[in-house]
Amino acid sequence: MQISRYRIKLSRLKHIFISHLHGDHYLGLVGLLSTLHLRNRVEDLYIFGPAGLSDIITVHLRYAEMVLGYQIHFKSLDSGNSEVLVDNDSIYISSIPLDHRIPCTGFLFREKIKYHRLKKSNKLKNLTLEEIHTLKSGRNVMGPDETIKYSVNEYTEPPRKARAYAYCSDTRYNEDIIPYIKSVDLLYHESTFLGDLEQRAYETYHSTARQAASIALKAKVEKLILGHFSIRYKELYPLLSEAIDVFPNSHLAVEGQQISIDH
Amino acid sequence: MQISRYRIKLSRLKHIFISHLHGDHYLGLVGLLSTLHLRNRVEDLYIFGPAGLSDIITVHLRYAEMVLGYQIHFKSLDSGNSEVLVDNDSIYISSIPLDHRIPCTGFLFREKIKYHRLKKSNKLKNLTLEEIHTLKSGRNVMGPDETIKYSVNEYTEPPRKARAYAYCSDTRYNEDIIPYIKSVDLLYHESTFLGDLEQRAYETYHSTARQAASIALKAKVEKLILGHFSIRYKELYPLLSEAIDVFPNSHLAVEGQQISIDH
Repeated sequence: MQISRYRIKLSRLKHIFISHLHGDHYLGLVGLLSTLHLRNRVEDLYIFGPAGLSDIITVHLRYAEMVLGYQIHFKSLDSGNSEVLVDNDSIYISSIPLDHRIPCTGFLFREKIKYHRLKKSNKLKNLTLEEIHTLKSGRNVMGPDETIKYSVNEYTEPPRKARAYAYCSDTRYNEDIIPYIKSVDLLYHESTFLGDLEQRAYETYHSTARQAASIALKAKVEKLILGHFSIRYKELYPLLSEAIDVFPNSHLAVEGQQISIDH
Repeated sequence: MQISRYRIKLSRLKHIFISHLHGDHYLGLVGLLSTLHLRNRVEDLYIFGPAGLSDIITVHLRYAEMVLGYQIHFKSLDSGNSEVLVDNDSIYISSIPLDHRIPCTGFLFREKIKYHRLKKSNKLKNLTLEEIHTLKSGRNVMGPDETIKYSVNEYTEPPRKARAYAYCSDTRYNEDIIPYIKSVDLLYHESTFLGDLEQRAYETYHSTARQAASIALKAKVEKLILGHFSIRYKELYPLLSEAIDVFPNSHLAVEGQQISIDH
């Protein structure tokens, strides 16, 4: 329903990442899979989630006697270890072990930038397409006598910095995640409670706003988004305020908001 | 979400009836059960549905490692036969076998009216509470000599007519349901297609508006509500119009609308 509300094209959906099997984190999935089928999807879909998710999807489809018109590739997550989930030319995605009441993982999305950027220059018009490709790939163009014909440093600038986003859903305060999320541009971290309920956060395997900000600070991330607020808080500003005291570039997650990461 | 939107009190929810296991008919259930738990429900809940529904609920709760704070009594429905599901002092509820691609039942809700209505009369002030209860229960008050002291016919009018509602979700045109829904005050019957798609309705185990109206006419029901329209119809008036041609007291189901049955 939210995908529809925010006019996200279902055809752009290729991978789905489910952190854990509490209802507020996945109960819309089976309906989404049915909708994709009814909209005549044929492209493969990749789903990453706890092992039980495959059973859950299977039991729903079995009783509906429904055979999806597209194929699901399901990868069962190991909540105890970080795993590489996707590694292609454009992106690297891995899991982050979290500390929750049931098996739970976060996800790290790291962009890959392959190409150097050509410097604007009149000399470019002398180059062949193959030579330009060599330079953009970060290699010098060599002459017939093994000398450098065109230097990558002279003709190009290095690739822009690749962007990284880490999504850490339900978790206790856990410094073990810091190596995984080190220096990411954007960190989403749950922030269920205010600091005065730190004990309650511990008991329910959640974090306080201060703890989320502390993780952001220690991991030297660029920007922090707080979310997953307890319904007890009618006013969210105190959660934001508490986080900002520790990590100034903190923000509240707002349903439907788009956040750009620019360099 | 709809229960919340229409401000229906969750505490009034005692029984849940699921016709069949296609997603549009039950996918909200697990979320509802979780919400009831989080809202601290302790009263027993009675769920009636196809056998597989129990497996589905169980697998969700198992992976969430969730133990509900209330007890669910699950009754698995036999889609081939009508069964009595609830029979108490105030209501009688039975299932209606439907003809759909997967096991599917409708539901008949028949009110029970126990009490005769006392006629207004000055003579009533001579009666004891016990004598009044006897008359309201439809029995004569007998004198010590086995004669009638107060006659139920003289002192009371018969109970008002009990109301009945039949819910027939997804089904092909099926005259076999007529005995079950005979003369009900209100019939909900699916009406997925217009009459020109009768063949398509047959193939997909659905009904046309004309077929729904024909069932209403033959069952001599008082009022017909049409629902479950194919998303191909941007304009629903033709569906209503087609039904009215056959059964004039036909109406379109409107999300959130309340329909009173008065005598």
